[in-house]
Amino acid sequence: MEYKFSDRVSNLKPSAIREIFKYAADPEVVSLSAGNPSPEAFPAKEIAEISAKVLSENPISVLQYSVSEGYTPLRQHLLEYMKNEHNTGNDNDDILITTGAQQIMDLCTKALVNEGEKIIVEAPSFIGSLNTFRSYNAKLVGVTVEPDGMNTAELEQALIANPDTKFIYTIPNFQNPSGVTMSLEKRKKVYELAKKYNVLIIEDNPYGDLRYSGEYVPNIKSFDTDGIVIYAGSFSKVISPGIRVAYTICPKPIFQKLVVCKQGNDVHTNIWSQYICDEFITKYDFNAHLEMLRKTYTKKAQFCMDLLDKYCKPAITYNKIDGGLFIWCDLPENVDMTEFCKKAVLNKVCVVPGNAFLTDDSSVCHSFRINFSTPTDEQLEKGIKILGKLANEL
Amino acid sequence: MEYKFSDRVSNLKPSAIREIFKYAADPEVVSLSAGNPSPEAFPAKEIAEISAKVLSENPISVLQYSVSEGYTPLRQHLLEYMKNEHNTGNDNDDILITTGAQQIMDLCTKALVNEGEKIIVEAPSFIGSLNTFRSYNAKLVGVTVEPDGMNTAELEQALIANPDTKFIYTIPNFQNPSGVTMSLEKRKKVYELAKKYNVLIIEDNPYGDLRYSGEYVPNIKSFDTDGIVIYAGSFSKVISPGIRVAYTICPKPIFQKLVVCKQGNDVHTNIWSQYICDEFITKYDFNAHLEMLRKTYTKKAQFCMDLLDKYCKPAITYNKIDGGLFIWCDLPENVDMTEFCKKAVLNKVCVVPGNAFLTDDSSVCHSFRINFSTPTDEQLEKGIKILGKLANEL
Repeated sequence: MEYKFSDRVSNLKPSAIREIFKYAADPEVVSLSAGNPSPEAFPAKEIAEISAKVLSENPISVLQYSVSEGYTPLRQHLLEYMKNEHNTGNDNDDILITTGAQQIMDLCTKALVNEGEKIIVEAPSFIGSLNTFRSYNAKLVGVTVEPDGMNTAELEQALIANPDTKFIYTIPNFQNPSGVTMSLEKRKKVYELAKKYNVLIIEDNPYGDLRYSGEYVPNIKSFDTDGIVIYAGSFSKVISPGIRVAYTICPKPIFQKLVVCKQGNDVHTNIWSQYICDEFITKYDFNAHLEMLRKTYTKKAQFCMDLLDKYCKPAITYNKIDGGLFIWCDLPENVDMTEFCKKAVLNKVCVVPGNAFLTDDSSVCHSFRINFSTPTDEQLEKGIKILGKLANEL
Repeated sequence: MEYKFSDRVSNLKPSAIREIFKYAADPEVVSLSAGNPSPEAFPAKEIAEISAKVLSENPISVLQYSVSEGYTPLRQHLLEYMKNEHNTGNDNDDILITTGAQQIMDLCTKALVNEGEKIIVEAPSFIGSLNTFRSYNAKLVGVTVEPDGMNTAELEQALIANPDTKFIYTIPNFQNPSGVTMSLEKRKKVYELAKKYNVLIIEDNPYGDLRYSGEYVPNIKSFDTDGIVIYAGSFSKVISPGIRVAYTICPKPIFQKLVVCKQGNDVHTNIWSQYICDEFITKYDFNAHLEMLRKTYTKKAQFCMDLLDKYCKPAITYNKIDGGLFIWCDLPENVDMTEFCKKAVLNKVCVVPGNAFLTDDSSVCHSFRINFSTPTDEQLEKGIKILGKLANEL
């Protein structure tokens, strides 16, 4: 049989990152391409404790069907926590628990964007979200990321040129892949523009708790008096990604539609893992855990930047980061970045070519992304040494 | 802000069943409307054992990011198991682990069906799947379910009348909601027609292991030499629905597209729960567990049918079932079924009105669905007694 796929997915390719993982599976290869939390970052002992208790005392509560909205105590605790700690969410909002934040992008695109309509994204941006948007045949419009976030003049031009834009997708904190944090001024400007042009904002904030330096910047959602911001939070980087728990705080009419879409998507998120997250953030010292994570990653991030300074100058430059898990590295304009990445793999180091994060991955790009949370210190040193040698030879 | 939703979801309503659950939440109401496994059906002790072991010995393996295709040992074991036990799956197929079988319907519709194209479904059929299909703006064409399965003459007419049909969706075993099992002859005929008219089949089999009487009928997928059947299996009814693990065995080109769609949907299924399922089916006596389930439910199903005979004649008739979790009940043609269901709720018994399972839920319908796996024997007797009294009074 000749299989005929839908128009929306016929040009969809596997994620470049997930393809690169195939090389990274070779144990001899140093992978700087993943975005996995460090093995020491997991509250494994606490998860084991919580799990053992509930599975012995009340197993059916975490094994039976549950509601699409999510585990009620977790929803209530998260609403309180986000309100108190981040002034995020108000009386016009509600909260939906999802199977990872990727599902938020899926449900929002399904609920809001007709085929061919536009989504404005940062260029570069997180490839996972871009591919989700593409899977509904949405058209992507890229806006350049500057050291303090989106170029807002370019954003306004994009909004004028694309009146069928449904939302602006942004990762304001320690953006993946650029590492950039959007300034407060720009956050306000993005909000103002979204309001002016009557479009929504999806504020994706998986790394917000992982700040290592610089000052806290409020979430865009914290000034959402008009009901135009869909906030996406996740436990993947602060508890565990394998258990797939995230949440969106968004205006109630959108929440209601997302719930209906979630019923048709996976009915509800794994209830055991929702229970784990709820118990961990309420019965344990969640803030102390976040502090431990920041301490671990501050050290790793600094170590990584020191290695880049030591081994990669002058051919590789990079943006200093204040948080998150990624560093964006630039090669000289005369170097073919794709060739460089291929050469790196042949030399047993895996990085992600920067063009993978663009709306059109055939665009010319001189950057690549590295991650420092997954590799050991030894692997980091070995890998970056090789990258520096290769870049400076070219 | 006035929210504008996409065309595909703007008419989407919350699942009628999930709405009915709101009444069912009243502890005084006897709910015969759910489809939850019986509390005694869960291998809770074994799940606790497996979980405790892996979370103490190798926690990162079930907490870290994993691959979209699913946990490799589980995929291999399931392929072997389905091949050996059910002659299901061959060298041209591959297997994808999903977050419940609902996700299989979501991914298949996304990958295969353009907006406005057709899906042929049984009438009545599982409302969850119908709503997923609708959420992509697919158009549904219903084919009557007879006591031995789909009316195949009507199916052929539907295929001729709708050349833009992408697949036929069927639940051949103990269909939800009708309880009907498709005969071998009809399974062959459905396969033959799909082949003749160049459409795919989604064979949804969540209840296959729950046969209480009658003879085993081979899966449609077992005669799939042409690569046209997408088989959907699930652990929801045989291990736990709350942990959301299902799987599809389907032709490799479809598998590859579904994997890309899954990357954009939820990246991968909860890895802890995949591990639980794999350990349970390989290290424990899975067949003995299934035997226990069949024993438990055979008793409950018979008890329920005995109650229907005792309290409901002559106003309520029903189809005797050979398996599954549901019984389809018919009211006399002069009785307003919707009114009956409302009256039942006022009298503290909750059932699902049959029209909820039709492609057009404003069609006239004289049936309703009851479930016997969730209520206790006492609740069943109380509820059915009330139903019988109400029906015979009208």
